Amino acid sequence: MSVSQSSQTMEHQLYFDVIRERRSVRSYDPEIKISREELIETLRQATMAPSAANLQPWRFLVIDSPELKQKLLPIAFNQQQVVEASAVIVVLGDLENIGMAEKIYSQAVDAGFMPEDTAKSMVERYTGMYSSMPEEAIRQKVYTDGGLVSMQLMLVARAKGYDTVPMAGYDKQKLMEVFRISERYVPIMLIAIGKAAKPGHPTVRLAVDDVAFFNEMPKE
Amino acid sequence: MSVSQSSQTMEHQLYFDVIRERRSVRSYDPEIKISREELIETLRQATMAPSAANLQPWRFLVIDSPELKQKLLPIAFNQQQVVEASAVIVVLGDLENIGMAEKIYSQAVDAGFMPEDTAKSMVERYTGMYSSMPEEAIRQKVYTDGGLVSMQLMLVARAKGYDTVPMAGYDKQKLMEVFRISERYVPIMLIAIGKAAKPGHPTVRLAVDDVAFFNEMPKE
Repeated sequence: MSVSQSSQTMEHQLYFDVIRERRSVRSYDPEIKISREELIETLRQATMAPSAANLQPWRFLVIDSPELKQKLLPIAFNQQQVVEASAVIVVLGDLENIGMAEKIYSQAVDAGFMPEDTAKSMVERYTGMYSSMPEEAIRQKVYTDGGLVSMQLMLVARAKGYDTVPMAGYDKQKLMEVFRISERYVPIMLIAIGKAAKPGHPTVRLAVDDVAFFNEMPKE
Repeated sequence: MSVSQSSQTMEHQLYFDVIRERRSVRSYDPEIKISREELIETLRQATMAPSAANLQPWRFLVIDSPELKQKLLPIAFNQQQVVEASAVIVVLGDLENIGMAEKIYSQAVDAGFMPEDTAKSMVERYTGMYSSMPEEAIRQKVYTDGGLVSMQLMLVARAKGYDTVPMAGYDKQKLMEVFRISERYVPIMLIAIGKAAKPGHPTVRLAVDDVAFFNEMPKE
């Protein structure tokens, strides 16, 4: 069953409804298949997120084959959404993403967004920076940029009338082995995407006073 | 000057316009001051983002004092947006955020979202997990959750008619010293927020084909 027509109308949702209505959904209608075309469009919009030096270190392994979702199930500690959702997106970070710098900055030149010499000097600068950067610093960027794109992905999905749940609990090593993911990638999270069968549970948030401070940190 | 009236109307923006129009803005109108009330509301909506185990490890040091923005300027390598924007939000991750678990899960009980014994066993489970977790794993969660909340923050700001720019390049050690930030926090990024004086530059993105793969990773 395709839901592309209903999702079209959902694209006109107001921004704050999308923010309010996004909730982690753990129960999906297994009959609903999101088309690859729609998944690709969702990813295209998600990747409009910013990233450090615009290096876009995110990679996505989209698992929509029923056999592979079954293989993923025990890796994700048998959370049923893995098989019931239309797809599970493994969000990865590429630790060698600096290798894409030349491609990205050439595209900026081709699009007329940047003069060629600016692009060249930026690629040289970033390549130099990354070659002397501790791996820990690269990991940090990749995890943070992975968070940025994942949030936008979940919001885009909601705006299209779908639901998601981010999963931080799974066997990372097993995931890497079973899906033959090279060590150059670090797993960031799994995101199940589909049509909700049951709404997500409401959750609480700390008051802003507990997490935000003006001009100085609170005394320890 | 207050812009709260114009920003009210912007809240009704369509979701996809917000995604499309969010762009990193580096030139701000220094006359525009976003009120603290509005900054707090922006943070409140941003923190509706999900996080691992709902532990919300994000913290925000909001710098809106002109003197402190001047102090931050050299730390952020003299990027003018630091002083021109209405505020700069230092997004931090709390490595000891597990200490908030009891507060968060009690609130869920009080809100009627969870029975008391479920909350209690979840707090025990997470506390146990975190106490045996390598610091590297906690850092990863904090960086990723920091990315999630930062993306939502930038989108909420845009929906309210403001602009932002995330900054990954700054002297972290100096930031921690000058603003007396305890070692329990890791800096994730700086986000300048204000009213654009000049629009952001358009930027390119890799094609989805370059970053997304269905059911198996590409051959190396």
